[in-house]
Amino acid sequence: MAVYVYKFGGTSVGTIERIKAVAQKVKKVRDTGDQIVVVVSAMSGETNRLIDMAKQMQAQPNGRELDALISTGEQVTTALLSMALEDLGCPACSYTGGQVKILTDSIHTKARIRKIDDSRIRADLEAGKVVVVAGFQGIDEDGNITTLGRGGSDTTGVALAAALKADECHIYTDVDGVYTTDPRIEPKARRLEQITFEEMLEMASLGSKVLQIRSVEFAGKYNVKLRVLSSFTEGNGTLITYEDTQVESALISGIAFNRDEAKLTITGVPDMPGVASKILAPIADENIEIDMIIQNISANGTTDFTFTVHRNDYVKAKKILEDICTELGAKQVLGDNSIVKISIVGVGMRSHAGIASTMFKTLAAENINIQMISTSEIKISVVVDEKYLELAVRALHAAFDLDKANVS
Amino acid sequence: MAVYVYKFGGTSVGTIERIKAVAQKVKKVRDTGDQIVVVVSAMSGETNRLIDMAKQMQAQPNGRELDALISTGEQVTTALLSMALEDLGCPACSYTGGQVKILTDSIHTKARIRKIDDSRIRADLEAGKVVVVAGFQGIDEDGNITTLGRGGSDTTGVALAAALKADECHIYTDVDGVYTTDPRIEPKARRLEQITFEEMLEMASLGSKVLQIRSVEFAGKYNVKLRVLSSFTEGNGTLITYEDTQVESALISGIAFNRDEAKLTITGVPDMPGVASKILAPIADENIEIDMIIQNISANGTTDFTFTVHRNDYVKAKKILEDICTELGAKQVLGDNSIVKISIVGVGMRSHAGIASTMFKTLAAENINIQMISTSEIKISVVVDEKYLELAVRALHAAFDLDKANVS
Repeated sequence: MAVYVYKFGGTSVGTIERIKAVAQKVKKVRDTGDQIVVVVSAMSGETNRLIDMAKQMQAQPNGRELDALISTGEQVTTALLSMALEDLGCPACSYTGGQVKILTDSIHTKARIRKIDDSRIRADLEAGKVVVVAGFQGIDEDGNITTLGRGGSDTTGVALAAALKADECHIYTDVDGVYTTDPRIEPKARRLEQITFEEMLEMASLGSKVLQIRSVEFAGKYNVKLRVLSSFTEGNGTLITYEDTQVESALISGIAFNRDEAKLTITGVPDMPGVASKILAPIADENIEIDMIIQNISANGTTDFTFTVHRNDYVKAKKILEDICTELGAKQVLGDNSIVKISIVGVGMRSHAGIASTMFKTLAAENINIQMISTSEIKISVVVDEKYLELAVRALHAAFDLDKANVS
Repeated sequence: MAVYVYKFGGTSVGTIERIKAVAQKVKKVRDTGDQIVVVVSAMSGETNRLIDMAKQMQAQPNGRELDALISTGEQVTTALLSMALEDLGCPACSYTGGQVKILTDSIHTKARIRKIDDSRIRADLEAGKVVVVAGFQGIDEDGNITTLGRGGSDTTGVALAAALKADECHIYTDVDGVYTTDPRIEPKARRLEQITFEEMLEMASLGSKVLQIRSVEFAGKYNVKLRVLSSFTEGNGTLITYEDTQVESALISGIAFNRDEAKLTITGVPDMPGVASKILAPIADENIEIDMIIQNISANGTTDFTFTVHRNDYVKAKKILEDICTELGAKQVLGDNSIVKISIVGVGMRSHAGIASTMFKTLAAENINIQMISTSEIKISVVVDEKYLELAVRALHAAFDLDKANVS
């Protein structure tokens, strides 16, 4: 007998019929004798509907009240799913985050989980019930309702799996696993049987938004076996593992890309200590997130400083940078919001030389100019003109033999 | 400085604009220095929307899950109203029944309040906040969400007023008070400045559905001053008082009526002990509520037995009764579902003779045949053909001078 935590996202529980399908799937597994905790999101569209109402009340809705409001979305799904299970003759019991209780800090709309009391859940599982828990939400020490922020339901699933020492945590979504790259770009893209946590983190943060980063980090930290599967089709999905369990036959696991980037350069910056902070602090103060940062060696006492931001923040960031340019006596601000970032990711590259060289040669063979390069231990990212995205992804996919199954 | 509990029903908070109007109203009073707890229902239509979803999941939705589901309706309103108040610069804080905590028994969908912890509310009021509480809901000893059943938000309001020893509990609704009768039937109907608890109970149970019976009983038991007012217009509404505070100038306070009744008679029933129970038990077993019961003296060893039920239950009750008729060897079952019940209500009739006689004379003068009569200490009810409803109500309204203000 195994213990599983199944998490279903908003699309998987988006209609009455889909909730019933989830109930069927859960019941089938529970009938084999396994114990199941189901974590659900709000029905798709519901959270936005609630946020829209909130914004009509208050331009910047009070965080505590916003949490009380939007947490109802998941609560509705838990109750409906429990009814659907009961209707199939499968005993079930729903819980809000507060009822469990999933204790968080008091930072409304982006709270972090501190502790989970699993006593009620364990008792229900022992009694043969399926336990249905509202994702995305918790309660602080004073009993205020909190929410965990975007993707919080994944985090709830992983945190419960950790608390219960579950055998696996299944994240059901609308894709059937993690692919070597986006199949809409490269039809030869292949589902990975497994991927390491670190690769997954790089893939997620680079735009393969199958899982939320926080939940993957959390799973890694607490040794939770995560599996990404489709709610709508059968299959084993992709298991996310620790590196040491993987046969390192593949050099790289996948190709991630991000279309949402824009790049900004400030040229002729006096090269002296503290200058990077002077440039970036005002950007950060406006809550603009910075992705890649590149500063090359200086020539003639000045340097060029380049970074990328989300395209939505491009205009705002450029304006701030122009003020900084004047202030620092730098030369000028250049910008480009028609770029993309493409990354190859793989733990294999740690122990294999020549990966970067293969990547650059492949792009050169297609006449694709590389504008920026940034690397980490298990990924190499390049920024290129957005018009080359599809061409570059397909060329790299072929160059690294990603369409062929690993020998593992 | 006074403490008030204001309760707003579903229609009063049915749209974003109406919630904002409620916020304006509450803020105005709070700015005078009074302390206010607001109890709200779900936005009109929301509870039915949720119940519809539940029924698609399970023909008879699990009670615990149904409570978890529908309690979200009030939670949404509390959060939105708190935001609207904050937006007006009025500090506010929302609470679910569980957060307060409003402890109930564990009878889902019709729980009863056992105890209210008012410590958090008091602290917030002292801190100058408006406290917004979800009506209709509570939590049982095991932390399960419960609901109080129909009209439960009124009960929440009264119970909080009792716990806080509030100066008054205001029930805001879509009518501006309790009237001598329905103004749609008799345009001369007049708003009563005050009415006794007992009269209110009779008026409510007889079809003047301004307040839920349970909340009125509760208010009487805990000495809470209840006032019924309109959310949409200014005015003092109707104060519900104890008899001893009222000047007994009026003989009767109002005329209630109920269009939803149907009558059933079983004739030629052998007159022996236990026969009433034999007739009514099978009806009660089917959860059919019985209103009036009349059994006249017997003649020739048999008697006729008549009672009224809700029109929706008429066909079902008639079928049951026909089986009983055969079983008891009675003569036949007669039924009529085109009747109405009209009642005159007033504490004044206790100490004044001739009220019944005036009533019957008035109806006779209009050639209205009385089919059944039933009386209590402060009301007299008659059943007549439904076609006479308007005529009877207007004639009685005039006969008892209800269009003229009391001398009180």
